[in-house]
Amino acid sequence: MELENFRNLRERCSVRRDIIREFLAELLGTFVLILFGCGSVAQTILSREKHGENLTIHFGFTLGVMLAVYMAGGVSGNWSHWRIEKSKIHLFEKLILLSIGAFANFADGKQIVVGENATAGIFASYPRENLSLLNGFIDQVIGTGALVLCILAIVDKKNIGAPKGMEPLVIGLSILAIGVSMALNCGYPINPARDLGPRLFTAMAGWGLEVFRAGNGWWWVPVVGPMVGGVAGAVIYFLMIELHHPELEKNLEDDNSIKDKYELNTVN
Amino acid sequence: MELENFRNLRERCSVRRDIIREFLAELLGTFVLILFGCGSVAQTILSREKHGENLTIHFGFTLGVMLAVYMAGGVSGNWSHWRIEKSKIHLFEKLILLSIGAFANFADGKQIVVGENATAGIFASYPRENLSLLNGFIDQVIGTGALVLCILAIVDKKNIGAPKGMEPLVIGLSILAIGVSMALNCGYPINPARDLGPRLFTAMAGWGLEVFRAGNGWWWVPVVGPMVGGVAGAVIYFLMIELHHPELEKNLEDDNSIKDKYELNTVN
Amino acid sequence: MELENFRNLRERCSVRRDIIREFLAELLGTFVLILFGCGSVAQTILSREKHGENLTIHFGFTLGVMLAVYMAGGVSGNWSHWRIEKSKIHLFEKLILLSIGAFANFADGKQIVVGENATAGIFASYPRENLSLLNGFIDQVIGTGALVLCILAIVDKKNIGAPKGMEPLVIGLSILAIGVSMALNCGYPINPARDLGPRLFTAMAGWGLEVFRAGNGWWWVPVVGPMVGGVAGAVIYFLMIELHHPELEKNLEDDNSIKDKYELNTVN
Amino acid sequence: MELENFRNLRERCSVRRDIIREFLAELLGTFVLILFGCGSVAQTILSREKHGENLTIHFGFTLGVMLAVYMAGGVSGNWSHWRIEKSKIHLFEKLILLSIGAFANFADGKQIVVGENATAGIFASYPRENLSLLNGFIDQVIGTGALVLCILAIVDKKNIGAPKGMEPLVIGLSILAIGVSMALNCGYPINPARDLGPRLFTAMAGWGLEVFRAGNGWWWVPVVGPMVGGVAGAVIYFLMIELHHPELEKNLEDDNSIKDKYELNTVN
Repeated sequence: MELENFRNLRERCSVRRDIIREFLAELLGTFVLILFGCGSVAQTILSREKHGENLTIHFGFTLGVMLAVYMAGGVSGNWSHWRIEKSKIHLFEKLILLSIGAFANFADGKQIVVGENATAGIFASYPRENLSLLNGFIDQVIGTGALVLCILAIVDKKNIGAPKGMEPLVIGLSILAIGVSMALNCGYPINPARDLGPRLFTAMAGWGLEVFRAGNGWWWVPVVGPMVGGVAGAVIYFLMIELHHPELEKNLEDDNSIKDKYELNTVN
Repeated sequence: MELENFRNLRERCSVRRDIIREFLAELLGTFVLILFGCGSVAQTILSREKHGENLTIHFGFTLGVMLAVYMAGGVSGNWSHWRIEKSKIHLFEKLILLSIGAFANFADGKQIVVGENATAGIFASYPRENLSLLNGFIDQVIGTGALVLCILAIVDKKNIGAPKGMEPLVIGLSILAIGVSMALNCGYPINPARDLGPRLFTAMAGWGLEVFRAGNGWWWVPVVGPMVGGVAGAVIYFLMIELHHPELEKNLEDDNSIKDKYELNTVN
Repeated sequence: MELENFRNLRERCSVRRDIIREFLAELLGTFVLILFGCGSVAQTILSREKHGENLTIHFGFTLGVMLAVYMAGGVSGNWSHWRIEKSKIHLFEKLILLSIGAFANFADGKQIVVGENATAGIFASYPRENLSLLNGFIDQVIGTGALVLCILAIVDKKNIGAPKGMEPLVIGLSILAIGVSMALNCGYPINPARDLGPRLFTAMAGWGLEVFRAGNGWWWVPVVGPMVGGVAGAVIYFLMIELHHPELEKNLEDDNSIKDKYELNTVN
Repeated sequence: MELENFRNLRERCSVRRDIIREFLAELLGTFVLILFGCGSVAQTILSREKHGENLTIHFGFTLGVMLAVYMAGGVSGNWSHWRIEKSKIHLFEKLILLSIGAFANFADGKQIVVGENATAGIFASYPRENLSLLNGFIDQVIGTGALVLCILAIVDKKNIGAPKGMEPLVIGLSILAIGVSMALNCGYPINPARDLGPRLFTAMAGWGLEVFRAGNGWWWVPVVGPMVGGVAGAVIYFLMIELHHPELEKNLEDDNSIKDKYELNTVN
C-alpha cells in the first residue's frame, strides 16, 4: 500500500526521456562547479585576499570540476553541453543571495567591472591589461586543447587510464595543472558555458553591458577559443594516440563509439 | 588456554548491541575530526599565523573528516549523529590539555570570545562583522546542502561513485571545496554536532555565556541551518538524480535501503 | 649460459633471511623519509623561507612517509623499527653532502642549535620557547596516539579501509593532518627513530652535546612520548573499534594476525 | 561505404611500427609536461610572483608529470627517451607564442639569462649563486636517484605498488616530494630531456650562447647528473629490494622483463 503509493509517486515524477535526465544532472553539476569555483573567487576578492589566494581559487575550480563530474558524470557522460545555458541564469540568482551581504560592504555596494574594486571578475573572465585579442584567443585554444587532451587520456581505457571512479579526481587535477600554468593572461575559462552564462547574468544583475565591452569586446574569446581548442585537442589525441592503439580496428565494427565521440559525421 | 582466556576476555568486553558499537565508533571519529580540525585552527590562531594559514586550516578539516570517516564509517555508516554530544565534552578536555601551555601565553591567559585576541573561535564558529542572521542562515543552508549533495553523489554507486575505500578521501575533498569557497561569512560549521558541542564546552570551560550571546545570538544558526540544508540537499539529489536512475525500480522491492536512507516514514 | 650466470650471481647476492631483507628495505625507506622530510626543512630554513614555507615542510614529511611506505611496506610491513638506528647515521652523511654548500653560506658556516641562525632543527625537533617537558610529553603522546589510531583504521579491512595500494597515500595524508594541527609545540617527531637518529648524527657532526641539553634536556621526550602514545593509540583502536567487529571471533582460530599485530605475548 | 572509407583512411594513417607510435606518444607526453611545468614557472616569474609561488610551480611539474604519464605511459612505457629531443624544439615555439605578449612587457622585451629580470630560467635550470659544479652534480645524482627509486617502488607489483591506473598520480607526487625538499640548489631538472631541449631552444630563440656559459658552464650538470643518478637509483633498488623478492626466481625463466628493465645485456 505505502510502497505502492511511493511507486506511483515515482512513476509520475520520474523522467524517462534521456534528454531531461541529462538536463537535470548537468544543471546540478554546473551548479556545483559554479558554486565552488566562482565561490572561491568571491571569497578571495571580497575578503581582499585575507581569506583566499591563488591556490585557494585553483582548488575551488579543481574540486568544483571534480564534484560536478561525480554529480553528473554517471548520468549524462557529458558535462559541458550548451543547452543548459538558460537555466543556469537562475542558479546565479541563488549564488548571489549567498554573497549579497558581502557585496554591500565591498566597493560601497557599487557593481564595478574593472579596476581595484571590480567584482564582475568573480563571475566571468577578463583579460589582463595589454593582452591582445589574438594572443588571448591562442591562449584559450591551447588551454582548452590541453584540457581535452588530458581528459581523453585519463578516460582512455586502452592507455593507462584512471581507475573507475577516480576519473573525476584526476580530471579535477588537470584543471589545477591549467590553473597553475596558464592563468596569467585571462584566468582559465576554457569552457563557453562556464564563462558566457555568468557573464549574461552579470549583465542583467546590475553590472550592465560593460561586461561585454570590457577588454575590447573580450567576451567572445572564451566562447569561440574553447570551441576551436576542444576540437583541436580531440583531433590531436586521436591522430597521435588513439589511432594507433593496436586493438582499435576490431572494435570499429562492434560499436560506433569512436565516431560518436568525435561526432564525425561519416554516415550519410 | 591462553587463547581461551583471551576469548573469554573478548566475550566479556565486546559489545554486541549495535547502538553501543556505533556510539564508540562515532565517539572516536568525532574525536579525530575535532582533534585535527580544531587543532589546525588553534595552531594558526595561537601562533598568530606564523605556523598556519587559510590553507592549513582547510587541510585540517579536510583530513579530519577523511580520517573520521575511515575511523567510524565502516562501523556506524553515519558519522554525524546527535546522540554523542554529551561525551564529546570530555574529549575537549583532553584537547585543551594539549593547548594549555600555548593558551597561557596568548592574550595573557584571558579567555576572550571576540576581537583580536579571541580564542573561542578555535572551538565554534562566529559570524564576521555585519553578517545578518538571515544571510548567515542562508549561507549555512546552502553550504550544508552542497555538502550533502556531494556526499550522496560520491557514494551513489549508480552514478560514477568513488571506488570502495576512496570515499573518505573524496568526501574530505568536498570539505576542502566548501572551505575555499564558502568560509567567508562564518567559517563552515555545516554540522550541528561539530559546532554546538564545542560551544557548550567553551561556555563551561571559562569563556562563559558570551559564546551564546555573541553575534546577536548566532549560536542557533549553525545548528538549525545545517539541519534544513541537509534535508534540502538530500531532497534535491533524490529529485534531480537518484529518482531517474533507470534500474531504481527493481531494487525497491529487494531492499528498503532507499527509504531508510532518507528516513521516509512510508510504512505505517 | 648467461641466464645461468645471472642466476648464480643472484644466488650469491640474494638474502634469504627475512631479518636482513627487512633491514635493507627499512634502511631504504627511512632514507627516503629523511631525505624528503628533513630535506624540505633544510630547503626552507637555509633559504630563509624564500624557497619553502609551512606547507612545503608538511608536504615533505607527508610524501616522505608515503614513499617510505611504498619502498619498504611490501617487504617489511613495519617501517619504523629500532634496529636500523646505527646505519642511518651513515645516510645522514650523504644528506649533509647535498646541503654542505648551502650550510657554508648560512650563519657563516657555524653550526648553531637554537636561535635565529640555528640549523640543528633541520635534523631533530626542539621545543618552542616556554613549553614545559610535561606538556611536550602529552603533546607527543596524543600526536603519536592519533597517528597510530589513523593507521590502524586505514589498514583495517573490516572497517572502510583504503584500497590495496592506496594505503601509503592515505597514511601520508594522516601525517599532513598532524602537521597542520599539532606542529605548534615542537614540530611532529612522533617517531623515536625519526628524531633520535638524526640527533645523534648532529651531535657527532659538529653541533655537539648542546643538541641533548637544549630545551632542558628535551631529547628524551620525542623518544618516550611516541612509545607511550603508540601503545595508547593501538589499545584505544582495539578496545573501541576492532574488538567489536562482528566477524572477529571466527578469524582468531584461523590465523594469529591480531595477536601478532599488538604483539600480545599470550602464548607460553 | 562510409565505414569502409573511414577504415581505409585509418589504414593509410595508422602507424604499425612501434617506434613511431612511441615517438608520437612521447612527443605528446613531453609537450604536456613542458606546457604545465614550464608554464607554471612562466606564470610565476612573469607576474613577479603575483600569480604564482613556490607551491604553484611544484604543482605545475607534479601534475605535468602525472598527465604526461597518463598521456604516453600506456603506449611507450618509457616517457623520458632521448630521441625526441629534436622535435621538442618545435613545441617550444608553440609555447612561446602563448607567453609572447607577457614577455614583451617584462624586462622591456629583453631576453636576459641571469639576474632580477631573467627569463631564461623559465625553460631550463640555472644554479643558485655560489653552487659549485661538483655539489650541483651530486645534487642531481641524488635527486634523480631518489626519483628512480620511488618510481621503481611505485610500479613494483611485488612491493605494495600503486593500484593500476593510479601510478601516474603517485609518480607525480614523487616529483612534489623532490620539489619541496631538493629545489634549493638549482631547481630539479632531474631529466636530461626536460633540461637540455628547452636550453637548446632558448639558445636559438634569442637568449644566445649565454645559456650554456652561465654558471661556469652549468648546462652539462643536469644532463650527466641524472644519467648517473638514474642508473644508481635503479641499481640500489634492485640490490636492496627487488633482488630479495621471494618469488623472483621463478619468473626469470617465464619472461625476460627484468633484464629488459635494466637493459642488462646478458645475452650474446
